[in-house]
Amino acid sequence: MTASGSSRVVRVSVGDDGYEVVVAPGALGELGKRLCALGGLGPVLLVTNPTVRALHGAAAEASLRAAGIDPIVAEIPDGERYKTMATLETILDAALSRGTDRSSVVVALGGGVVGDLAGFAAATLYRGVRLYMVPTTLLAQVDSSVGGKTGVNRPQGKNLIGAFHQPNGVLADTDTLATLPEREYRAGLAEVVKYGVILDGGFFELLERSVARLNAREPALLGEVVERCVQLKAYVVERDERERGLRRLLNFGHTVGHAVEKATGYSRLLHGEAVAMGMVAAARLSENLGLCGPEVAARVQALLSALGLATQLPADVETAALIDAIAYDKKASGGKVAFVLAETIGRCVQREIDRGSIRVVL
Amino acid sequence: MTASGSSRVVRVSVGDDGYEVVVAPGALGELGKRLCALGGLGPVLLVTNPTVRALHGAAAEASLRAAGIDPIVAEIPDGERYKTMATLETILDAALSRGTDRSSVVVALGGGVVGDLAGFAAATLYRGVRLYMVPTTLLAQVDSSVGGKTGVNRPQGKNLIGAFHQPNGVLADTDTLATLPEREYRAGLAEVVKYGVILDGGFFELLERSVARLNAREPALLGEVVERCVQLKAYVVERDERERGLRRLLNFGHTVGHAVEKATGYSRLLHGEAVAMGMVAAARLSENLGLCGPEVAARVQALLSALGLATQLPADVETAALIDAIAYDKKASGGKVAFVLAETIGRCVQREIDRGSIRVVL
Repeated sequence: MTASGSSRVVRVSVGDDGYEVVVAPGALGELGKRLCALGGLGPVLLVTNPTVRALHGAAAEASLRAAGIDPIVAEIPDGERYKTMATLETILDAALSRGTDRSSVVVALGGGVVGDLAGFAAATLYRGVRLYMVPTTLLAQVDSSVGGKTGVNRPQGKNLIGAFHQPNGVLADTDTLATLPEREYRAGLAEVVKYGVILDGGFFELLERSVARLNAREPALLGEVVERCVQLKAYVVERDERERGLRRLLNFGHTVGHAVEKATGYSRLLHGEAVAMGMVAAARLSENLGLCGPEVAARVQALLSALGLATQLPADVETAALIDAIAYDKKASGGKVAFVLAETIGRCVQREIDRGSIRVVL
Repeated sequence: MTASGSSRVVRVSVGDDGYEVVVAPGALGELGKRLCALGGLGPVLLVTNPTVRALHGAAAEASLRAAGIDPIVAEIPDGERYKTMATLETILDAALSRGTDRSSVVVALGGGVVGDLAGFAAATLYRGVRLYMVPTTLLAQVDSSVGGKTGVNRPQGKNLIGAFHQPNGVLADTDTLATLPEREYRAGLAEVVKYGVILDGGFFELLERSVARLNAREPALLGEVVERCVQLKAYVVERDERERGLRRLLNFGHTVGHAVEKATGYSRLLHGEAVAMGMVAAARLSENLGLCGPEVAARVQALLSALGLATQLPADVETAALIDAIAYDKKASGGKVAFVLAETIGRCVQREIDRGSIRVVL
């Protein structure tokens, strides 16, 4: 650990024994030690992509080797469009042909795509082995590495196939955030803003006050922000692991967001960029349905814009294509679509909405 | 239900709410009613194969339609060699492109392969939907439909990829057993014998006394046998859903059995036929290791032979190929292989065995 910041630990009490999320600068250096601490450690499968490996692979592998671990490395292509069953199979084949067993741990080193794929592999290899998350993007640190959602996309939509599989630990090295491309960092901020809107008005205000420091990626602030988001995520998944109620609130902005990603072929927009657009759409829908005043959409839009995120849907995406995509969303049922809507900054609810209401807002 | 037999219900207390296994002649006619009783029923996906559909599809679909259910039918090819990720994807694509949602139920109508694939699809569709098992083979009724194991084979071995996903109900129509081809019926009897060896010496004696009635498929006896096996399976999975201890006993005969299946390309032997050979090998291994006297292997072999099952390994399968296959078994770890061994008829234990001991027996 560097001297530049403090180590924060959030305990997530879900799954067999619960797990710890460690948030700290330089935490990557602890990877080997923390894996050994899991106990009964079989061969380790390290899943990553070439981009992340070039930046952080050496540090991760050095930490593993220092702990006596010689990892099997499965490198997968970088990008949301590779979040497929085919990529899952390459990970599983690496695991099966290169010596893993039931005591193995799958380590996900990378962002949301790496975590979702490595997590799904861990969920299904030998009907489930242990999973350790090492998120290197802001989005993965604040959201996707915690809570056990894993999966792949299908031509019909995002994350339609997958499993709930809780990790046995999460190691979020906030130093890795300094290496993120600008777009990816800002996309992660969209999910940070989401937590404020759905659960914590005070946190939203902190973000509003901290725009310059967020844009400068101030390390101490990032540690605080990641910790707060993980605490909020833990609060939600502890109460509703399988998304039967409360957890659905985390989908704020995601129904339209997923549809925009699909309509743009999963290649033009990052997930967080699409969620930013989706959150503004959801806030406007909330306003149109009389759930909240106009200040909610205005503040969400202003904060996202100040953080460098586009909030308008791409001009060339047709509304009909979006409506079609929404109908395929996992959250669709019986002709209506479950939408998360804002009552105020810090409080959201889920409602069943018909297509007509959505069309007006889009 | 026909007048020919009584309805038996075994409750399995595992998973969220537990579930019921109904064992009865003519039970297929209750399928629609029982699905509706699950509540909140979305579109039903019926997974089956052409062989089973020709025999029982009309009865199943009539029962569904009588209850107002118009199923989406996903027909998959018949045979263990189709228990693959590719077949899984055809089921998932049928589900995604033909109108399922999170409230859907996947119904598995068929034997072990249909159940394992439909179950894995239910486990991963939208990260998990409900599953209803309608086993039509003896093997599926006494074993694979209960307990939540789902999965597919890989070139490296059987059932290496999958998930634990408990069904929401099981409907075992013992009338379907009359339609089984002779080989498939006898293969199922191998798993029946297994329960006696590992857990219930009295049941094993009942089977020894009932060889003629078993070979004649006497309906009343079959209802009793299926019920007893399901009770024993429920006892095991209630105490160890994830196969960390007690449940491993159910693998008696399966380590060598899986290896023989792999060495013969999953095409020549039925699963139960390979398990019969594996049980005799495991009993001999137990004897060689001094765990039991020679009468255990002798009685197991005599009963299996009386039920028409071969107990010698195929002459053309090389020992080296079997040893290699065993090393890839899910139960292998750290150079040793976890083997279930018999102490007496009705009591087994798990031990770590090295390759040398196995080679002698094979």
